[in-house]
Amino acid sequence: MEYGTLYGVGVGPGAPDLMTLRSVNILKSVDVIAIPRRSEKDESLAWKIAKDNVGDVEGQERLFFNFPMVKDPEVLRPAWEIALSGIGERLKEGKSVAFITEGDPFVYSTFIYLFDEAKKRWPEVNVKIVPAVTSITAVAAVAGIPLADGAERVAILPATYGVDDVAEIVDKFDTTILMKVGKTLPQTIEALEREGCAEKAYYVSRATMEGEKIVHDLNEIEGGKRDYFSMIVVSRRERSGALSGKTKP
Amino acid sequence: MEYGTLYGVGVGPGAPDLMTLRSVNILKSVDVIAIPRRSEKDESLAWKIAKDNVGDVEGQERLFFNFPMVKDPEVLRPAWEIALSGIGERLKEGKSVAFITEGDPFVYSTFIYLFDEAKKRWPEVNVKIVPAVTSITAVAAVAGIPLADGAERVAILPATYGVDDVAEIVDKFDTTILMKVGKTLPQTIEALEREGCAEKAYYVSRATMEGEKIVHDLNEIEGGKRDYFSMIVVSRRERSGALSGKTKP
Repeated sequence: MEYGTLYGVGVGPGAPDLMTLRSVNILKSVDVIAIPRRSEKDESLAWKIAKDNVGDVEGQERLFFNFPMVKDPEVLRPAWEIALSGIGERLKEGKSVAFITEGDPFVYSTFIYLFDEAKKRWPEVNVKIVPAVTSITAVAAVAGIPLADGAERVAILPATYGVDDVAEIVDKFDTTILMKVGKTLPQTIEALEREGCAEKAYYVSRATMEGEKIVHDLNEIEGGKRDYFSMIVVSRRERSGALSGKTKP
Repeated sequence: MEYGTLYGVGVGPGAPDLMTLRSVNILKSVDVIAIPRRSEKDESLAWKIAKDNVGDVEGQERLFFNFPMVKDPEVLRPAWEIALSGIGERLKEGKSVAFITEGDPFVYSTFIYLFDEAKKRWPEVNVKIVPAVTSITAVAAVAGIPLADGAERVAILPATYGVDDVAEIVDKFDTTILMKVGKTLPQTIEALEREGCAEKAYYVSRATMEGEKIVHDLNEIEGGKRDYFSMIVVSRRERSGALSGKTKP
């Protein structure tokens, strides 16, 4: 039997109506939707975003997998083995499987590991990626601050893995996006303040979702609740488009 | 009379079904759709993407504006004055206006200048940004190469404004995205070859559109037709997710 198609489907940054038409159509047509969540008690944000747009589909299987929010490979590998085995079994039966992720499937997503493993384990499988609105453009949209225009340059880095060189990056790039600041929020703010770029920064958590928060004075959030779905954007906007006369880098 | 709302609506990278549900709903409900095109003879790519999803809307005005594809402010300013005057007039009449752009409205888009001017000229106007799938994630999706995972970092720069320091950037970032390579394609390829990173690069033009082209050997495109909607991505992928054991930068 021929393998079913494996889809990596991004459901966008949080608001259900920021899903694409393609993502809704594919999720309505596949045999299996594979849904990552943090634990059995977790609702799964990706599925929360998608479910009302997908609705009931007769005969469709919804397969939940638990991925603990840790970086330790020893904890993650067994979770992935369960997911890979469940997904592989269905693909081998010729069933199409869509693995859903928040944001875009190729931007810091749970799907990337599955994608890499799928190519190794099932080289015959056809894998299709459905790109989506990322949290990055969603954050810019809700803050009302353009990401890049004309000659401007953008750097994207996950704050979780260190912000030691943030000053150098902020200096060279017009917009610097610090993803997943969650636990490293105090260090990130400290680094930005030390380098005198805190006043050019803004913080957004849960962009386009319920509980969305936009803060322009970083000190206001320092003591507050840290949210995993948060980002700090440092926006200099000193060069811009063809009409500004500031186009040369 | 109260001003109408001004929307900046991204219609995504090219495939009509990569529009979001929100973008389609807004374009079906506004009084006026403002449509940028290169000249009177140009169909407008943004409108080509959107039109079948929007369909006929009774009483809705479709307002085309010509923006020549140049960087010279002397040529662009008169074009923008016409557009700003037409859009301003309708907003003052209380009409809602949606300005459409390819990709995302805050990522190297025609809309950014309108956004900046709108805030100056009509401070009372409510401006809403509808984020979209960018050509950046679309390119990654069609090439089947993840943009960033785990500790990986991404740099985005418009090749049009110089690629002199590309080696330094490729060295520091896991994924480097050179936007709008069009006219600077030969210099960009030369710079990447000089620095020995050409074999880690791939070229995509017209991602998700008719005529999509993905090239992994940059020499194959050197003599070919240069497309404005083209991008070179340099992907090292040497660090990745939590399971790779390569998470430390």
